[in-house]
Amino acid sequence: MATWQVINGGVTAPKGYRAAGITAGLKPSGLPDLTLIVSDTAAIAAGVFTTSQVRAACVDYCRQRLQAKASAQAILCNAGQANAATGEQGWADAVQSTQWVGQALDIEPESVLVASTGVIGQRIKMDKLQAGIPLVVAALSETGSDTAAKAITTTDLVPKSIALEMTLQDRPVRIGGIAKGSGMIHPNMATMLSFITCDATVSPPLWQAMLVRAVDRSFNQITVDGDTSTNDSVIALANGQSRTPSITEPGADADKLEAMLTEVCVYLAKAIARDGEGATCLMEVQVSGAADDAGARSIARTIAGSSLTKAAIFGNDPNWGRIAGAAGRAGVHFDQGQLQVCLGDFVLMDQGQPLVFDRAAASAYLKAKSEGAYLKDDTVLIRVSVGDGAGQGTAWGCDLSYDYVRINAEYTT
Amino acid sequence: MATWQVINGGVTAPKGYRAAGITAGLKPSGLPDLTLIVSDTAAIAAGVFTTSQVRAACVDYCRQRLQAKASAQAILCNAGQANAATGEQGWADAVQSTQWVGQALDIEPESVLVASTGVIGQRIKMDKLQAGIPLVVAALSETGSDTAAKAITTTDLVPKSIALEMTLQDRPVRIGGIAKGSGMIHPNMATMLSFITCDATVSPPLWQAMLVRAVDRSFNQITVDGDTSTNDSVIALANGQSRTPSITEPGADADKLEAMLTEVCVYLAKAIARDGEGATCLMEVQVSGAADDAGARSIARTIAGSSLTKAAIFGNDPNWGRIAGAAGRAGVHFDQGQLQVCLGDFVLMDQGQPLVFDRAAASAYLKAKSEGAYLKDDTVLIRVSVGDGAGQGTAWGCDLSYDYVRINAEYTT
Repeated sequence: MATWQVINGGVTAPKGYRAAGITAGLKPSGLPDLTLIVSDTAAIAAGVFTTSQVRAACVDYCRQRLQAKASAQAILCNAGQANAATGEQGWADAVQSTQWVGQALDIEPESVLVASTGVIGQRIKMDKLQAGIPLVVAALSETGSDTAAKAITTTDLVPKSIALEMTLQDRPVRIGGIAKGSGMIHPNMATMLSFITCDATVSPPLWQAMLVRAVDRSFNQITVDGDTSTNDSVIALANGQSRTPSITEPGADADKLEAMLTEVCVYLAKAIARDGEGATCLMEVQVSGAADDAGARSIARTIAGSSLTKAAIFGNDPNWGRIAGAAGRAGVHFDQGQLQVCLGDFVLMDQGQPLVFDRAAASAYLKAKSEGAYLKDDTVLIRVSVGDGAGQGTAWGCDLSYDYVRINAEYTT
Repeated sequence: MATWQVINGGVTAPKGYRAAGITAGLKPSGLPDLTLIVSDTAAIAAGVFTTSQVRAACVDYCRQRLQAKASAQAILCNAGQANAATGEQGWADAVQSTQWVGQALDIEPESVLVASTGVIGQRIKMDKLQAGIPLVVAALSETGSDTAAKAITTTDLVPKSIALEMTLQDRPVRIGGIAKGSGMIHPNMATMLSFITCDATVSPPLWQAMLVRAVDRSFNQITVDGDTSTNDSVIALANGQSRTPSITEPGADADKLEAMLTEVCVYLAKAIARDGEGATCLMEVQVSGAADDAGARSIARTIAGSSLTKAAIFGNDPNWGRIAGAAGRAGVHFDQGQLQVCLGDFVLMDQGQPLVFDRAAASAYLKAKSEGAYLKDDTVLIRVSVGDGAGQGTAWGCDLSYDYVRINAEYTT
């Protein structure tokens, strides 16, 4: 396995990147709302986007751009208006945004990718955006990741950022990432976004394939409420500034780089789940024994997304029946006589039947986790084994609390 | 289209059926908990069961029995213990139950189908069951449907029952049904059950096919919390006592019978959704314009099951963005430029973009519906059109309230 260390710097930790987040007046709140991430040189670019049929203009724009050419030099993100359900005008606004950034950075507009988060059905406030772009360009800094991480948030309670470094062929190589997301709380406000920077040299198809697999094991394995946004985007740049040997084929170096990329994505994904609306704890569901990894991941996701399981966790209820029920309805075949369910160190169910366990102690385990929110010890661990297969998968979620309903039912005409 | 009228009598409205529900002591509460439905003569039997990998013994027993021979004369249902996650002993208990009923009714044990609802992982209290069977047999009555409808409930707030009659070849034919279900509220307690009786004469494969299609358009289109139970069962008997001509082939008579069967299932399904835990209103989602019915049904189901949409309805929020977002992630292709969303008579979105509408009036529409719970006017109507296709589908659900969380997070060690 690759070994890496956590370093400071977020998306500006890798060599050759600058970033900034400023207040451009897009959000009514006056909080930072415009982010720019720039590579000094053209970077290989990969992207994974929402699969929804209802997509923001920026999602269609980026997907089309990356299909034409897998490189980019800048990512612009506005927080405030989603630019989704905005029709042809939304597309024109996305294109205009890239032109303004291109002019300000003196690069081709085609080298600029765009992302939006905010209220669906609203156009970007283009006058504010136009005025803000020279300001965010002026603010670009090699230590600017924290301001960028802050300015992409909407209803998040905390910014989400990470950077890792390892040695590849005796030279340091780094991956940094920032993310936003916590479910949806303001009416129509949504979106999971993540921007990742890397200074390795890697071929475009390999980088895209690595990102797809990493996202499948991280962002696609978290659930706050099962609702997918119109704007979900993960964009990853690799600019080669580490001067490490180019990775063009699968092999040991590619595996090391992918492992570190996956770790960055998993860290950010867990941070999003932990920040889920109304959450009092993080739920990690590890499934083993399935026929393949995809099946195991599907079972894990179904358990993490089960409203009944989530409500039980909130209620400190070691309810193996709801966990088993969710596992059973995931659409993945297994023999119920081989089902085992563990909560922390408690074995609740084995060979498909409930065991006698210390219910009070298991409930106390859950209670301690919810009291550990935002501490290191906030993770409720659910382990499920469904047979003898080699398939493994992990998913993350959070509990379902009164606050989730309060946050999402708040409305004033 | 077939025309029918509502009649009294539930499952005993069709000719040649008796039913009863009694208190056998299976439930700790002392409420009625043992139900028997009997046809005077052997009936054609069809069944649709949970697709979960974690299934109660009674589900496996009935599925196996009906595959061997599509006929039955009695349905026994115990409410209190689910007989799920009970291993080989659970299977033996199910078989024993059929033997006791067979002896008491003087019919073959193979003519008895069984269903259970209650706490997962608990064996049926066999001593109470054995003592109860002669009592429920003695209580059988041609007007016993209401007691049966009551005794199959667990956490339901109201029993659910319907009977319809129409004329087929100048003779009256009837279908009656009872159902239970409201999500899950007691720890590990679950299950959607429905038992349907009919006095038409129909061939076994036709009756099974009719039931599958009717269930697809009714029980499979309701969602309270997305969680499927280990015990979900729909069993339908047709005993031919109406003396109407035998329906052995598809055609006008078969269509009429299937339409009435579907109506019975839809009525009961809506009653379950309306009784959803913590629900303040019924949500009906009508989707049109999809490429096919299956796609339209899938979109409708996804909207009805969206936590964000459900919370918005609870908050009286005419949130078209959440509805559009849920439609988009249903896994069904459509052109977002053709998306239209209506709430009651309000057109919220057209051609993929939001319209200006009277938000206060739309919110008042939602508020009036939640105040109409258990009255006739409790139905929030959401209509979504996704294109020009002929595919149509409807789903039903309920809002997501504080009470849902309270009910499902209650736990005492």
